[in-house]
Amino acid sequence: MQIVEIIRKKRDGGTLSGAEISWFIQHYTQGDLPDYQAAALLMAIFWRGMNALETSQLTLAMAASGAQLKIRQLVSPVVDKHSTGGVGDKVTLAVAPLVTACGVAVGKMSGRGLGHTGGTIDKLESITGFNAELSRDDFLRILSEHQLVLAGQSNELAPADGKLYALRDVTGTIESIPLIASSIMSKKLAIGASHLLLDVKFGSGAFMKTVESARELASTMVEIGRNSGMHTVASITSMDQPLGRAIGNALEMKEAIAILKGEGPDDVSELCYHEAAELLMMTGKASSMKQAEQQVARAVHNGAAIKAFAEVVAAQGGDRRQVEEPDLLPAAPSTVMLTAPHSGYLATIHAERIGLVSMQLGAGRFKKGEEIDHRTGLVLQAKIGAYLQAGAPLVEIHARNEQEAHAVQAELLSCYTWSEAPVPEPQLIWDTIRP
Amino acid sequence: MQIVEIIRKKRDGGTLSGAEISWFIQHYTQGDLPDYQAAALLMAIFWRGMNALETSQLTLAMAASGAQLKIRQLVSPVVDKHSTGGVGDKVTLAVAPLVTACGVAVGKMSGRGLGHTGGTIDKLESITGFNAELSRDDFLRILSEHQLVLAGQSNELAPADGKLYALRDVTGTIESIPLIASSIMSKKLAIGASHLLLDVKFGSGAFMKTVESARELASTMVEIGRNSGMHTVASITSMDQPLGRAIGNALEMKEAIAILKGEGPDDVSELCYHEAAELLMMTGKASSMKQAEQQVARAVHNGAAIKAFAEVVAAQGGDRRQVEEPDLLPAAPSTVMLTAPHSGYLATIHAERIGLVSMQLGAGRFKKGEEIDHRTGLVLQAKIGAYLQAGAPLVEIHARNEQEAHAVQAELLSCYTWSEAPVPEPQLIWDTIRP
Repeated sequence: MQIVEIIRKKRDGGTLSGAEISWFIQHYTQGDLPDYQAAALLMAIFWRGMNALETSQLTLAMAASGAQLKIRQLVSPVVDKHSTGGVGDKVTLAVAPLVTACGVAVGKMSGRGLGHTGGTIDKLESITGFNAELSRDDFLRILSEHQLVLAGQSNELAPADGKLYALRDVTGTIESIPLIASSIMSKKLAIGASHLLLDVKFGSGAFMKTVESARELASTMVEIGRNSGMHTVASITSMDQPLGRAIGNALEMKEAIAILKGEGPDDVSELCYHEAAELLMMTGKASSMKQAEQQVARAVHNGAAIKAFAEVVAAQGGDRRQVEEPDLLPAAPSTVMLTAPHSGYLATIHAERIGLVSMQLGAGRFKKGEEIDHRTGLVLQAKIGAYLQAGAPLVEIHARNEQEAHAVQAELLSCYTWSEAPVPEPQLIWDTIRP
Repeated sequence: MQIVEIIRKKRDGGTLSGAEISWFIQHYTQGDLPDYQAAALLMAIFWRGMNALETSQLTLAMAASGAQLKIRQLVSPVVDKHSTGGVGDKVTLAVAPLVTACGVAVGKMSGRGLGHTGGTIDKLESITGFNAELSRDDFLRILSEHQLVLAGQSNELAPADGKLYALRDVTGTIESIPLIASSIMSKKLAIGASHLLLDVKFGSGAFMKTVESARELASTMVEIGRNSGMHTVASITSMDQPLGRAIGNALEMKEAIAILKGEGPDDVSELCYHEAAELLMMTGKASSMKQAEQQVARAVHNGAAIKAFAEVVAAQGGDRRQVEEPDLLPAAPSTVMLTAPHSGYLATIHAERIGLVSMQLGAGRFKKGEEIDHRTGLVLQAKIGAYLQAGAPLVEIHARNEQEAHAVQAELLSCYTWSEAPVPEPQLIWDTIRP
C-alpha cells in the first residue's frame, strides 16, 4: 500500500477502506511512516471527515494497536464511563461506586487534568496513599475482587492514540469529530467493558461549545460502540456553569463523598443518580428507569455506595478513613470568602474562566507533568438563578496562602454576571443518545 | 508567532498575513519548523486555497529564501521563459536564440526531465561537451557576453521551493494552483529577469488536464508577476498530442535546430515563432505583432538565430559543429519504422503514453538522478488529422537495439486511435493571458 495514495484519496473526498486504515495505523504506530505523512492525512481527514464505517474502522485499528484488556471476559456485565470533561465534574467518582453497590462491576481508567478541566485521577490522588498507577494484573485483580477499580490510563492501551493525539496537538487537527470520537473510543475498546456510558458536555466550560456539536460527537461514539459490540449510550449535558459547587481536587472528592451519602448539591447529585440508573437499565439490572432510580437511592441510603467506594480506596492503597470522615482529607491552609458585590440574581458563571482561576490557585496543570496542589480550589456558594443580597457569600477560595487567595478575587468576580430580574435555573441534562 | 495558530487560521479558511507567510518560509527553510507542521499547513492551503495577495507573498518569501541573481540589473530588458512541460516540448531551445538574435537578452535556467515530460537541460546535454552546471559567475558572464545563457536550475535559488516541493511530493499536496504557481514563480523571481513568458499547457500529456485549470494557473502566475514587478504573459497551449514530431533528447535538439533554420514541423515552428514575437512585443522591441513576426522570420532566414544558438553552445563548452551539422549529434544504433496497421485518419495520439514509451526506450527518467540515453526516442511521421494508407510510415523508433525497439511496438500502436471520417487538425494556441 502507498501512503501518498491514501492521503490523496481522502484529500479528494474518497472513502478509505478498512485495509487502508489498518495499514496506516499499524505502520504509523510501528514508526514506519513519518509524522509528516500522518500530519497530511490528519488534515485531509479534518477537511473531508470520515463516514461511520471509516470512523469505526479507525477506532478498532487504534484499539488493536497495543494490549487489549478484554475485561468483559473476566466479569460480565462490566461497565465503563467517560466524560468529555468539564469544570467541577466529579460524576465518575460517584457513579462508579453507586453502580458497583447496585451489583454491576465497573472497570475504569481515567486521565489527569490539563488546562481548565480537572482529571478524575488527580481527584482520587487527593486521598492519602491512593495508587492509580496499577499494573495490568493489579487492575484485573482489584476489579475481580471488588467489582470496582479506578486507575490511570495505561500507556500500553491504544498506543496509536497517544501518538496521533500528540501529532494532532501540534498540527491543528484536534477539533475533528471522527478523530475525537476514535481517540476516546479506542481506549474504551482496548479496555473492553460490555457497556459504556458517555457524558458529552457542551457549553462555555466544555470542549464542545454547542449542543449540536455535542450531539454529533455523541452519535458518532454511540455508532462506533454499535459497530464494535460495545453497548454505548451517551448523555448530552450542559457545562454552562461548573457542575456542583466544588472545583479542585480534594474539594471535589469531598463533594463526591457527599453525593454518595445523599448529601451533595442538587444538580450534580441528580446527574450522578441519573447516570447510575441509566447504567443499571443498560445492563438489564433494572427493567425500568423508575426501578433503577429506586435501586440507586437504596444504595445511597443504606450506605452500600459509600462502602463500595471506601473498599476500592483501601484496595488501591488509600486511607479509607478519609472517605468515612472527609474532614480528614488534605485541606488548604487559607480560605477566604468572596461575597456578592451587590444584590441581584446570578445570571451566568463562566465555567472555563472559573476553571482557570482554580488552576491559578494550584489545582490544575498548565503543562503536562506539572505538580498540582490537591488542597486548593473554589467552593461556589450560589449557582445560576440564585438571589443574593449584597455581602452574601458568593464563592469560597481555598488557597495555599492568603496572598494567593486575594490575587484571584478580581478575576473571579469577573466570571459572574448579574440580573435584576429572576433568572431560571439552567437545564442540565439535554438529551440521551441510544444506539 | 505560533505555527499551530497559522495552521488553524488557514484550516478555518482565514487569510494569512504577509508576516505570517514570511515567518513560516524563513523558519521552515532554516529547519526550525518540523516537516509535520509544514505538511499540515500545506494540506490546509491545498484545501482552502490562497488569494492573489497571499500567493504573491508566498512566492516573494520563497524567492527571498536564498540567493537572488537580479539579472535585470546586469542587462535590461532580459527575458525568461517557462513551460509547464509536455511531450516533445523543445520550444525553449528555439525561442531563446530567436529572441537573442532579435536583440533581446535571455537568461534561462531549466530543469531536468522526470516522468513522461522531458527536460530542456537533458536535451541540451545531448550536444557533446555542453555544460549546463554553471557557477553564478559563469552564468552572469555568459549572459553578459552572449546575451544568452541556458543553464540548469541552481540549488542556491529559492531553496524554500526545493524543500517544500519535496514535502508536497510525499504528502499529496502537489496539485494546488497557489502552490504550483508560487513554486514556478519563486525561481523566476530569484533569477530576476525583467520579462517572463509562460507556456501553460493542458491536455492528456500535460500536468493540467483541462483548459480551465491551465487558465487558472496562468492567471495566478501573471498576477504574481504583476505584484512582483516582473512583466509576465502566459500562453495557454494544447498538449493533446506531442508537440512537433521528435520525442527524445538528441532528436528534439535536432528538431529545434531545424526550427531555427525555418525547416521545422509546422505546429511547433509556428508556436516558437509566435512566442518569440510575443517576447519582442513585451519588451518593446516591436510595436506590433506583425512587425515582431517579421523580425523573427528575418532572424531565421538570415541565419542570425542559428548563429546565436551555436555561439551559446560553444560558450558553454558544447560542440558547435553539431548545431551547424545536426547529423553529428549522437544517434541511436537501431531505428525501426512502425507503419499504419490500416488506412484511415489519425484521430488521437495519447501524448502522456507516447512520453512513457520514450522513457522506456531510455530517453527519460523514472526516478530522480537516473541516467538517460540522449540518443533514443521517437519521431512521429504523422499527426492528428493526417490520412494514412495501411503500411504508410507512422512512427520511427530510435532504440538502443532492435529488441528494445520491437518491445514497445504494441504499446506504441495502442497510443493511436483512427477514424474513417476526416479529423480536423487540433488548435494549438488557445489563449494569451496578459496582466
